[in-house]
Amino acid sequence: MDRRRKFWGWGYEDQRLTPGEQRMIRAIGASQFKVAQFEETPVPQVGEIALARPRLSIPRALAGILTTDPYERLLHTYGRSLKDYIRMFARDFRPAPDLVAYPHSAEDVAAVLAWANDENAAIIPCGGGTSVVGGIEAAVGDGFSGAVSLDLGKLARVVEVDDVSRAARIEAGILGPALEAALKPAGLTLRHFPQSFEFSTLGGWIATRSGGHYATLYTQIDDFVESLRVVTPRGIVETRRLPASGAGPAPDRLFIGSEGALGVITDAWVRLQRRPTFRAAASVHFPTFLTGAEAVRVISQAGLYPANVRLLEPLEGAIAGAGDGSRALLVLAFESADHPVEAALARGLEICADHGGTFAREAEGGAKGGAAAVWRNTFIRMPYFKEFQVAIGILSATFETAITWDRFAPFYAGVKAAAEAAIVAATGKPGVVTCRFTHVYPDGPAPYFTWHAMGHKAALLEQAQAIAAAAADAIETSGGTVTHHHAVGRDHMPWYVKERPALFGAALAAAKAELDPAGLLNPGVLVPARP
Amino acid sequence: MDRRRKFWGWGYEDQRLTPGEQRMIRAIGASQFKVAQFEETPVPQVGEIALARPRLSIPRALAGILTTDPYERLLHTYGRSLKDYIRMFARDFRPAPDLVAYPHSAEDVAAVLAWANDENAAIIPCGGGTSVVGGIEAAVGDGFSGAVSLDLGKLARVVEVDDVSRAARIEAGILGPALEAALKPAGLTLRHFPQSFEFSTLGGWIATRSGGHYATLYTQIDDFVESLRVVTPRGIVETRRLPASGAGPAPDRLFIGSEGALGVITDAWVRLQRRPTFRAAASVHFPTFLTGAEAVRVISQAGLYPANVRLLEPLEGAIAGAGDGSRALLVLAFESADHPVEAALARGLEICADHGGTFAREAEGGAKGGAAAVWRNTFIRMPYFKEFQVAIGILSATFETAITWDRFAPFYAGVKAAAEAAIVAATGKPGVVTCRFTHVYPDGPAPYFTWHAMGHKAALLEQAQAIAAAAADAIETSGGTVTHHHAVGRDHMPWYVKERPALFGAALAAAKAELDPAGLLNPGVLVPARP
Repeated sequence: MDRRRKFWGWGYEDQRLTPGEQRMIRAIGASQFKVAQFEETPVPQVGEIALARPRLSIPRALAGILTTDPYERLLHTYGRSLKDYIRMFARDFRPAPDLVAYPHSAEDVAAVLAWANDENAAIIPCGGGTSVVGGIEAAVGDGFSGAVSLDLGKLARVVEVDDVSRAARIEAGILGPALEAALKPAGLTLRHFPQSFEFSTLGGWIATRSGGHYATLYTQIDDFVESLRVVTPRGIVETRRLPASGAGPAPDRLFIGSEGALGVITDAWVRLQRRPTFRAAASVHFPTFLTGAEAVRVISQAGLYPANVRLLEPLEGAIAGAGDGSRALLVLAFESADHPVEAALARGLEICADHGGTFAREAEGGAKGGAAAVWRNTFIRMPYFKEFQVAIGILSATFETAITWDRFAPFYAGVKAAAEAAIVAATGKPGVVTCRFTHVYPDGPAPYFTWHAMGHKAALLEQAQAIAAAAADAIETSGGTVTHHHAVGRDHMPWYVKERPALFGAALAAAKAELDPAGLLNPGVLVPARP
Repeated sequence: MDRRRKFWGWGYEDQRLTPGEQRMIRAIGASQFKVAQFEETPVPQVGEIALARPRLSIPRALAGILTTDPYERLLHTYGRSLKDYIRMFARDFRPAPDLVAYPHSAEDVAAVLAWANDENAAIIPCGGGTSVVGGIEAAVGDGFSGAVSLDLGKLARVVEVDDVSRAARIEAGILGPALEAALKPAGLTLRHFPQSFEFSTLGGWIATRSGGHYATLYTQIDDFVESLRVVTPRGIVETRRLPASGAGPAPDRLFIGSEGALGVITDAWVRLQRRPTFRAAASVHFPTFLTGAEAVRVISQAGLYPANVRLLEPLEGAIAGAGDGSRALLVLAFESADHPVEAALARGLEICADHGGTFAREAEGGAKGGAAAVWRNTFIRMPYFKEFQVAIGILSATFETAITWDRFAPFYAGVKAAAEAAIVAATGKPGVVTCRFTHVYPDGPAPYFTWHAMGHKAALLEQAQAIAAAAADAIETSGGTVTHHHAVGRDHMPWYVKERPALFGAALAAAKAELDPAGLLNPGVLVPARP
């Protein structure tokens, strides 16, 4: 219970990379970038950081909710993007919030909003704090008297389970593992496992339109929301618990993806599933990523609905420790809580064979064994690597998008080339850009790009931003979306504004003005900040 | 090409009930209501109706688009609800629009909106004209100089087919059969078959959140929309064509279900499917509707995704000519364009057997034979029956809702009892109220109620409205939704306003004020009309 989260990295303070993991990262970096020696910046300490004095003072009535504790302010300064890590290791915590709020109830949230309204204080709603897009950073400009990070972490109960409809009412601040642990005795699961699962929350997933681990069908949090309770500066919005409705534009859909700019999600009824008991999985190799992609397209259009259909570029497979780097790897898996899925896998593999895929069926245990297991372990550890990579000057980040199949091949080539060129331009030497599919739809894939570059310690931030901007430019001009499941935040705003129809932006701003007339909520996210 | 639509009924003027169908309706009515003789009101003629002089005149620039033709004004006066038929047969066409517009392009739509803005004329966007909720009625009050029904029927092309992503760009005014005929050569289908299919349009489906014929998974039009083009008084909104995106609240979702109140949908990219080639179906009998419902719940939660899982009350099955009236009937069917579905049907039937269901597998051809076929034929003919029922004084209508499984049994009993009591109260004698499931979700069903009552010719409208109001009251107070797939229109507004969160209503009104500052578009629908 006394474990503290790192204010400068991923997870708890006692969770560090093993010496073996550190050696591996150094070795890969040395070989990729021909670097003999890495200079390691030590991790920052609370005492090293000179925080500005809080511009807001705590009223007596909110003394149990608000705090000025320096560690809390540091912990809530950033999300967990490359840009955030760079600033953490540079000891730059200038955007720290003045106060941190820990409400215990929706009523507490309303009280904080009322006080913030009187004080002209900006409110930055915060779930697990794992944003990789600047979504929870109190960079609110001079128009406010100060900023408060509103952490929902104390609203963390599973309030009610409806076993008949397979749904539960759950508070927004619950972390993934606690949510699943509470549902497990009933044999139920939300079955939503984003990479940030350990340290992200239900409310955060809903506010950012999180994508789960599974590749098709029910994987996005959007589809799991049955109803919502949202506290706005104007009052509470509570939607009706319904399996479906045709009554006007769906109210929930206004708040799903609202990124804290329209209200504070305090709890939700979410749709659950029984825990899967049937599994079948295989690893398939393809001569190239594009031949694999064609097989994935046909599978995605066949109505088979695999739990996993993760296609990795040859190099990506090798970096993740799965595959020898000569061929593209497809992890194909099916799951069910009700019936065997061998026939679905067999049909999926038939399609793979039609497209030049070769495969080995996996041992009993399905997705838990073989190449998939190696990949999965690396996937879970990956967020822990970033802070060490930044400490030794390696820039590493990801970006994702979605595009229809008809445009995929040139889009993929163009975006990858743009990122590669940007790395050379920014750092003076080649980096590595790889791609995989995280999700696929009948009409197109969600390509997920990972890049690595050797940075210059004195210019890491500029280099990281130049590379990210070049990638976003290439995506935007080629017709993709600037984000498939990482949200908009502050980092994606320039491209989001180009991507969305201007009049939709105006309508959204009008809706925000109705719900948050003073513009206190997450200023600058989704709706441009007031001047 | 010269076939004209009935301005007072369903379909074309040459489509009438057969003498046999008329006899059947009289016989059922005579037996249900103990009526010896029915007085038949003749169908109205254009020449009988005294229309008010149009309050708007046609500007030279729009002469090719606008018309004052009396038949056109009559055709666009009403939708096709019971309330509409009652007024048609009463020769009451007072809400007739002053003009009817037939734009040929999005530019024409913009020109009509610009002119309407200058003239302070209300615009009622109209697809196939089959609304059953008063969605296209020019009842706009005195705040406007007049009203124009904007018929999208000339925007009816399939513009582009993307066979790789399985999607097509299609204009909003195309009718169901023309849309499917245009896609058939490519082996593709939208696979969206609402009961109104013959005479409803893609744009109408999107504007009203139409539900298709299929029971699970991809059936609602919401899920088929890949992108939209919408003309508003402020300009054009065109969303990006994407398989998915996590960038803020989804722009398309604001316009899906917007019922013409936020803009005029002129075309959409929609997701298509290959035409199914594998089918397996069976008819299952259950001792009661509630035991059948329990089997349906388990099937809906099993991840089997049947194309059809239509549960009919014993009497509903008998009225539709399928089943002997002693047991509930479940039509269970699976379809695929890719792989055999026998195993899925077998598993579904196993679940049925676990819940007391008895069944006969259907002959080769699946859903096309047996009880399902009888039911399907009746289903398609049913809209044609209404005008004759009203002509002989039989009130007959439907209403639908959705509710989570945990509340279903008492909800069903309560709503049914309320409708039955309302029929007695309104007409002085018992009627018939039956129920079926049109769609099912893992967390709840969409119950669809049909009712019949013997009306008094002089009071049909009051009787129909009293019964509809009692049903909507019962649904609203029991936690259901006032509409699953018939939309809100003018008829459901009082209950819709109670169902939705008040602050969502305020946000929607603010969005409308941004897109339609003068409030010209479908006034009174979704957003209360300006005072």
